[in-house]
Amino acid sequence: MSTASEGSVTLVGGGPGDERLLTVAAIDALLTADVVLFDRLAPHSRLSELAPSARLIDVGKTPGHHPTSQSDIEALLVEHALAGSSVVRLKGGDPYVFGRGAEEVAACRAAGVPVTVIPGVTSAIAVPAAAGIPVTARGVTHLFTVVSGHAPLSDDEHRHLAGLGGTLIVLMGVGTLPMLTAGLMAHGAPADLPVAMIERGYTPTQRTTIATLATSVQVASSAAVRSPAVLVIGEVVRFAADGDESAARIFDTASALAAAE
Amino acid sequence: MSTASEGSVTLVGGGPGDERLLTVAAIDALLTADVVLFDRLAPHSRLSELAPSARLIDVGKTPGHHPTSQSDIEALLVEHALAGSSVVRLKGGDPYVFGRGAEEVAACRAAGVPVTVIPGVTSAIAVPAAAGIPVTARGVTHLFTVVSGHAPLSDDEHRHLAGLGGTLIVLMGVGTLPMLTAGLMAHGAPADLPVAMIERGYTPTQRTTIATLATSVQVASSAAVRSPAVLVIGEVVRFAADGDESAARIFDTASALAAAE
Repeated sequence: MSTASEGSVTLVGGGPGDERLLTVAAIDALLTADVVLFDRLAPHSRLSELAPSARLIDVGKTPGHHPTSQSDIEALLVEHALAGSSVVRLKGGDPYVFGRGAEEVAACRAAGVPVTVIPGVTSAIAVPAAAGIPVTARGVTHLFTVVSGHAPLSDDEHRHLAGLGGTLIVLMGVGTLPMLTAGLMAHGAPADLPVAMIERGYTPTQRTTIATLATSVQVASSAAVRSPAVLVIGEVVRFAADGDESAARIFDTASALAAAE
Repeated sequence: MSTASEGSVTLVGGGPGDERLLTVAAIDALLTADVVLFDRLAPHSRLSELAPSARLIDVGKTPGHHPTSQSDIEALLVEHALAGSSVVRLKGGDPYVFGRGAEEVAACRAAGVPVTVIPGVTSAIAVPAAAGIPVTARGVTHLFTVVSGHAPLSDDEHRHLAGLGGTLIVLMGVGTLPMLTAGLMAHGAPADLPVAMIERGYTPTQRTTIATLATSVQVASSAAVRSPAVLVIGEVVRFAADGDESAARIFDTASALAAAE
């Protein structure tokens, strides 16, 4: 029963924050949107130009600084689509990487609303790149794991992550860093494994802090590393571009300490 | 010593193949490029329009179907940049996900050539999305691992991947699927764990084949699954959209078999 006034929902990955990392498909979706529901981490500073016909709804925060609940967001998506609107749900990063995209797609399907997902550049890979860190590199690693640090991982997860090796990328992990580093080291991950903590990727105040598994909690505290940050743990951190000098110092110090013991 | 004629290299992630998944930054880089070196998997069908001033060099294949060697690609990048050109290296997916981006950046730096990386939409996440599969989903998994299936993994890697759980995404893994599935099951991964094999993501001939860990080798053979394909192993495969019906059949059959045993 498709009519000219049939509404729809498009979940759009907005990338890590720099508007230039929106895709052509994302730009097109915004251009024709009637309603845009956007997150705090999505690129939204020029939304009134990018989505000139749209009613813009900030669901990342309200005047009282309370984010709209997930069920309210889903209800809004469905409500506007059923009223005939082309609804864009603009998210930071990729909708399917800790973006609750699966839930929003399910809510639309349950309500009979056509729903499309436009993938985006994920912060998990792009923010390390902004700091000069490739998540894979030939001869260094052929695998990487992306985890949410929102809640602490289990002891089994720490064991298998330590055993698996490769690159470990943690989103939303500043708060659980102490449990993560202790858990990985308890299962044999080397204390001198490099760690990069990248704050505010792709903004003018981007900052990369380099440490090791053993020192990262103290270094993060001294440097006052704050969310949102992307953590990278693994040998690939040695490629860090804007952290080259501090990385070199850290590794020299670690080697000197090891030699002195 | 920056001059108007100073050359540079920009590594550009071209996304999984659909031109609409190029980023705004990628489009801008192409528009002003003097030289574009592109891969077979990068979106290149309209490159002469997207990069109107550029000499286009296909390094994915030559008339004799031999790809340009990695060292030749690096030499070409450096040579054109030192001659003063704005060089774009257009890659499929993201330059830092099995894209040998780290090597090309290193070659440019070694030659004193300014080099920038523009991240792209990675096939590892976007191709599953095209088949309706989120790589993470609340209540299902809070982590995913991306591996290259170019060479078989080690026994230890199979053990820890099986133990870690979450979503496993394999690129370039059609050839090594038998070793992978045997290795995972040998270390306790459930035989009925769902597997999706997605060929030609974001093309008109995209095809998703659904199986289980135990049946995937036979199903891949029967269905003649060919590279390049993205493999997804994990509970999230149950979300598959265009594989819903076949997925339902597979799981019903698996349950019936289990009940009969």
